This record gives sequence, C-alpha cells and structure tokens, in this order.
Amino acid sequence: MPDKAFQDYYPDNLSLCYGCGRLNDAGLHVQSYWDGDETVCSFTPRAVHTAIPGFVYGGLLASVIDCHSTGSAAAAAYRAESRPMDSSPAIRFVTASLRVDYLRPTPIEGPLRLRSRFKEIGRRKVVVETDLYVGPELCVHGEVVTVRLQDSPAPNDRGSDSGAGR
Amino acid sequence: MPDKAFQDYYPDNLSLCYGCGRLNDAGLHVQSYWDGDETVCSFTPRAVHTAIPGFVYGGLLASVIDCHSTGSAAAAAYRAESRPMDSSPAIRFVTASLRVDYLRPTPIEGPLRLRSRFKEIGRRKVVVETDLYVGPELCVHGEVVTVRLQDSPAPNDRGSDSGAGR
Repeated sequence: MPDKAFQDYYPDNLSLCYGCGRLNDAGLHVQSYWDGDETVCSFTPRAVHTAIPGFVYGGLLASVIDCHSTGSAAAAAYRAESRPMDSSPAIRFVTASLRVDYLRPTPIEGPLRLRSRFKEIGRRKVVVETDLYVGPELCVHGEVVTVRLQDSPAPNDRGSDSGAGR
Repeated sequence: MPDKAFQDYYPDNLSLCYGCGRLNDAGLHVQSYWDGDETVCSFTPRAVHTAIPGFVYGGLLASVIDCHSTGSAAAAAYRAESRPMDSSPAIRFVTASLRVDYLRPTPIEGPLRLRSRFKEIGRRKVVVETDLYVGPELCVHGEVVTVRLQDSPAPNDRGSDSGAGR
C-alpha cells in the first residue's frame, strides 16, 4: 500500500471527523487505499468495541464502512477527473444513506478487512458497495450512497469551514 | 420517564456493548424508554463526535439508532408476552440490518431525540422505525431489522456468555 491514505489528503477543516479525521485525537482514524479498481481498508477494533462478548459492535462496523465509503467516493471522483488528490479544489463526499447487513457475528480478535467496489460514479453522487471480512469469512455487507460537498479548500488551505454547510 | 431504562435490565454478560452496555465504561450508554406505544431516547453527543465542524458524525447517529432499536425490540417482546423486564429468561435482540437516511446535517449542539415505532413485532424478528430530531428538525430516519438471541440468562444470573453464539 502507498504511504498516504485517502483521508491523509483531506483539508484540515474536514479532518476532524470522529471516524476518519487525522486531527481528531479520540477518533477511529479509518484509512483507505486503492487496490486496482477497488478500494480497501484494514481496521483493528479495540476491546471496548464489543457488542456481545467476543464480537464487534455493529455501530463500529457501520462507522468504519461509512468513512471508508465516503473516502472511496472522493478518491473515485479525483480519478474520474484525472486529478491528483492534493489538487485544488478538494473533493469531499458525505453520506446520504447507509445500509448495513450483518451476515454473521464479527469476531473481535482479527483485523476487519474491507473491500469496496463502485456501483455508480456520478459527479454529484457515488454509490459504494463494501464487503467486510475477518479472516476468510464475509461478516458484513454495506451499501453507502454518498453525495458531493460543495467544493472545499485544498489540503494546504487553512481556516475556512465552508464545507460545513454541506 | 421511569428510573430504569430498557438497557438497565440487560443481564451483566450482555451489558458490555459499546453502544448501550452499562458495564462498558468507555461506551455511549444509550438509554431507552416507553412513551405510550412508542419508544424514546435522548442522547447528547460529545464534541469528539464531529463529522464536519458543527455537525454530528453519521456513524454515531447510526450507533445510537442501532442500540435504541435493539433495546426497543426487547421491550416490545416483553410487552407482547405480558412479562416484566426483570423476568427470566432475559430477552435480547441483535441487529440483522440497519438502514439510515441522513435527511439533513445534524447539529452537534442539541441533544438528539429519538422516537420509534414498531413496523413488525414477531417472536423472532422485530422491525423498528426511528425518527431522530434536534429541536423541531427531523434530521435522520432509521429502520432496523432485529432478530432474537437464543434465550439469555435473567438479569441476576452471572457468568454465562451463552448469548455470544447469537
């Protein structure tokens, strides 16, 4: 994998997200990467992320899928526009709807491995489908509809919070 | 509201959930109550639960809806069986699927107020629909399909983790 994750390119004012913001010290720090035409993410839950003993909390699973999907949507948009991810204006997507199917209890020991493909890539809307595995087992399936934020400042711009208006 | 929330009746071994377990010190401690034939929950997000500045993280919203829904499903099952919530065997539901529609950005200042109704109450499956408000504004809609765990020990039983097999 490359050194920089999709989320490392987010502008500072869009990097406070609890799920994936590099500037949120208490957050989950979800990090996503390309793997060919698909995107991937590995996440290791902490012991506190329990649902029933031995298994991962469903809200945490939904959270990781959510942030990985919005990051993947942005990456797909940069790629569709043949633009590097540190070019301006920055592209960010937010979640319009999230659907998560819990196919089996997700063991808490192993890292969660997410693999996503794109069901739709439009300029304003990207739909991301994700399978979440622990070891060889498919545990969760997610589908996230994301919509594009108004153009955001580039990674090196500072101080604006224009994205907050969605 | 009564003193005890639905979640206060969960047996100790099912009270470690990050979202609603009273024994998970790092968790969210979602608490749910009856209001007539509907169920309600109030939750105050912390500053770290940011998405973009000023608004609540979608994964947190999904998490609160999730735990409020499984708790509501258990409460509905006790009521359908005309049983008090501290009777044995304990009834618990887990999430089979979660659907969340983010209708507008959810302001982080106010408490989140959830109100749920039951779309279906079966012995093995309960479907819960939830509206989430901040002030008068409807911000999020959720639909959660929950399924019943095998019978669990009563609140005063100790030490079993039979629920972990789902």
